[in-house]
Amino acid sequence: MDEPVDLDLASLHPAVDDPALTSMNFLNEVAQHWPDAVSLAAGRPCEEFFDDDAPRRWLDRFRRHLVEELGQGPEQARRTLFQYGRTKGVVHQLVARNLAVDEGVHVDPEAVVVTVGCQEAMFLVLRALRADPRDVLLAVAPTYVGLTGAARLLDLPVRPVAGGPTGVDLADLRDQVRRARAEGLRPRACYVMPDFANPSGASVSLEDRRRLLDLAAEEELLLIEDNPYGLFPAGEQGRLPTLKALDTRRRVVYLGSFAKTVLPGARVGYVVADQRVAGRDGAVGLLADQLAKIKSMVTVNTSPLAQAIVGGALLEHDCSLVTANVRQRAAYGRNLRHLLAGLARRFPAPSPVRWNAPAGGFFAVVTVPFPVDDALLRRSAERYGVLWTPMAHFYDDGAPVNALRLSVSAVTPDQIDLGLDRLAALVADELTTSGSPSALVSRDAVR
Amino acid sequence: MDEPVDLDLASLHPAVDDPALTSMNFLNEVAQHWPDAVSLAAGRPCEEFFDDDAPRRWLDRFRRHLVEELGQGPEQARRTLFQYGRTKGVVHQLVARNLAVDEGVHVDPEAVVVTVGCQEAMFLVLRALRADPRDVLLAVAPTYVGLTGAARLLDLPVRPVAGGPTGVDLADLRDQVRRARAEGLRPRACYVMPDFANPSGASVSLEDRRRLLDLAAEEELLLIEDNPYGLFPAGEQGRLPTLKALDTRRRVVYLGSFAKTVLPGARVGYVVADQRVAGRDGAVGLLADQLAKIKSMVTVNTSPLAQAIVGGALLEHDCSLVTANVRQRAAYGRNLRHLLAGLARRFPAPSPVRWNAPAGGFFAVVTVPFPVDDALLRRSAERYGVLWTPMAHFYDDGAPVNALRLSVSAVTPDQIDLGLDRLAALVADELTTSGSPSALVSRDAVR
Repeated sequence: MDEPVDLDLASLHPAVDDPALTSMNFLNEVAQHWPDAVSLAAGRPCEEFFDDDAPRRWLDRFRRHLVEELGQGPEQARRTLFQYGRTKGVVHQLVARNLAVDEGVHVDPEAVVVTVGCQEAMFLVLRALRADPRDVLLAVAPTYVGLTGAARLLDLPVRPVAGGPTGVDLADLRDQVRRARAEGLRPRACYVMPDFANPSGASVSLEDRRRLLDLAAEEELLLIEDNPYGLFPAGEQGRLPTLKALDTRRRVVYLGSFAKTVLPGARVGYVVADQRVAGRDGAVGLLADQLAKIKSMVTVNTSPLAQAIVGGALLEHDCSLVTANVRQRAAYGRNLRHLLAGLARRFPAPSPVRWNAPAGGFFAVVTVPFPVDDALLRRSAERYGVLWTPMAHFYDDGAPVNALRLSVSAVTPDQIDLGLDRLAALVADELTTSGSPSALVSRDAVR
Repeated sequence: MDEPVDLDLASLHPAVDDPALTSMNFLNEVAQHWPDAVSLAAGRPCEEFFDDDAPRRWLDRFRRHLVEELGQGPEQARRTLFQYGRTKGVVHQLVARNLAVDEGVHVDPEAVVVTVGCQEAMFLVLRALRADPRDVLLAVAPTYVGLTGAARLLDLPVRPVAGGPTGVDLADLRDQVRRARAEGLRPRACYVMPDFANPSGASVSLEDRRRLLDLAAEEELLLIEDNPYGLFPAGEQGRLPTLKALDTRRRVVYLGSFAKTVLPGARVGYVVADQRVAGRDGAVGLLADQLAKIKSMVTVNTSPLAQAIVGGALLEHDCSLVTANVRQRAAYGRNLRHLLAGLARRFPAPSPVRWNAPAGGFFAVVTVPFPVDDALLRRSAERYGVLWTPMAHFYDDGAPVNALRLSVSAVTPDQIDLGLDRLAALVADELTTSGSPSALVSRDAVR
């Protein structure tokens, strides 16, 4: 006899049954089910440079920093690492130094909240901003699924803003802001990844960054800038200043991650929230302090031991992650160029298969003249031995998308070749069976 | 000229201005402002047994476990520690072993979600259960402020259930459930800390534990059992079985913390959620899997490096925290007995000052015949040099409470003596100035 059930899914928060939360599960399951398939799906950093000895070394380095540079006695240093600690974190000064060194961003360390990965940073910001059922979030589409999922948990509707080839369609953004307001809604912020975005690979030009900041000021809109990949340009153009570096009017809440630049396993990220918030009694404080109050009820504080590991890694390279990631930067750039060249070789013009050419980061998007759905992914894994991510997972409306995301971060050039050969075989078979491309009507993804 | 403000507090989620979130800040500020005061306020574990070498040693021990016991190759072990990982955690089997060894609780490791401290466990459970504006949470009062704060962030009203001297007033619990339902509300669960509760120090008897479980089954109510202090009995009675150990009908969601038994700085806790959840398609899964979906959008996963540190500590003692904490258990027990004896010596009967006599844990509650508010705490810190916690912070209604919480976890017996001398001086002065005790009408706290 079956055991009785205790709860019904329908009695739990609706987010648990939402595609934004279940799609991650689906993608993981496919990967686990076909572990031998070449994965052009995983957005994980490469493991080539992981060093068994690093956690111990970085922990020691940070402990020395506490004692020698911050003047803590051994007992106090032990307390900093082992005990409950400051809600906003203990590596905030190093984070601020890193932002100054690598990004030319100068922020008050008190405006930094160190978080359990960038995901918690995102979650705290959305929790703070979602005050009312009228609140909505704008997000450049296609959108990182972690943003959509966090918004779902907070009952915060996400309205897409067209990304397009330039990374963000400014006219559409203005349109969406005004349309939302005309409906009586409050667009609280627009989420954007201006550098080598996940999933699109697109980057916003310097001119458009300036226009975006002007628009945000004019419309009194916050921008949530997420920048996990900015350190990894692949081409000659190099790096552009972040929105935060150009932000003279405090319109930008900046999200940082150490997952790709130090270690995912530390689960340390941060948010810079230097916006000035007026309290009831006229006192003015930082948005960071409001986020810290929220954090105290979500995770209390970020593990100081995990922070110390990241802090030590920063100290080892004078707070420059550009310096710390010389080898990683070269490897990711090489892989991305290899992928783009490999696509050009396998789908020579004229071809119904198109792709974009990101200037850096982990991802590129391939558009094909047939539907790309979860069933196709499963078939690709089973029969062709290659994994990728259907772009439909990054749109919120469930509409079909004729595109797939390829990732180059966790593979070697040889694996890229093998994966592309297999992808080309899949595409050839699909083109044969799906008939005339022109008969298909479906949204193109980023090109 | 003042810089302009960017946001108004009133435009943010109302929780940020709620006493449940701001009281923690206030208490921290007082402690920081008077760092030389004796703190009978801090609920932190004692630092006497912190060991600089432990994180490295435990990390190595866990790595060996991955290789030698779980058969992971060096590369796979490195991936487990450094890479993104399993949402439900990587020490789940060790947690299950610990529960079997120390608590006689036998759970499927798949029902364990490893979290960023117990706070995140609490937050995930409340997020899952709060599906609808009709949902309310019941909580034994006085209540740990982290529970109330998490509920605030999720717009989940908390209704108090009388705690009283027996830890939970079962008649009141039944009453509250029925009253809520009569109002068209859905009481989703009752939060309870049956062992040496924070802040009351109270424990639920074995008989009442059984009755509580029966009541939960009859009323189809979940119980959220929080057990951070159960390992620390001070008296002859020793330890009672947890609710989870007695739970044959899956009514108990169990929250565990390693902050007091291993290290707060690891920020590792967990939830056992073995409730069976029926999905839309008839598939039945564990509540733990729904919590994991939520976790993936809050913190992605708990730092595997932090988990490894806790995992190594568990392995070093064959997964028994009872064994690992022999010295800590002795120290906390000694301190609590010292506190209670010290109170008896300083306030001999007949006295208008009363206190309870917890059988273990970190806390005791002192009831006095005058109002105990934040202003008094400030005066106590400034003029008398002793810190404690006004019990009003643990009630949700803002009503005055003539009681204060004393903590013995982070002090020595000498500091307890000094703190009590100072507290006695404060009380004597207050008794002189506040006039006749009988003129005061105010809620007694736990007695």
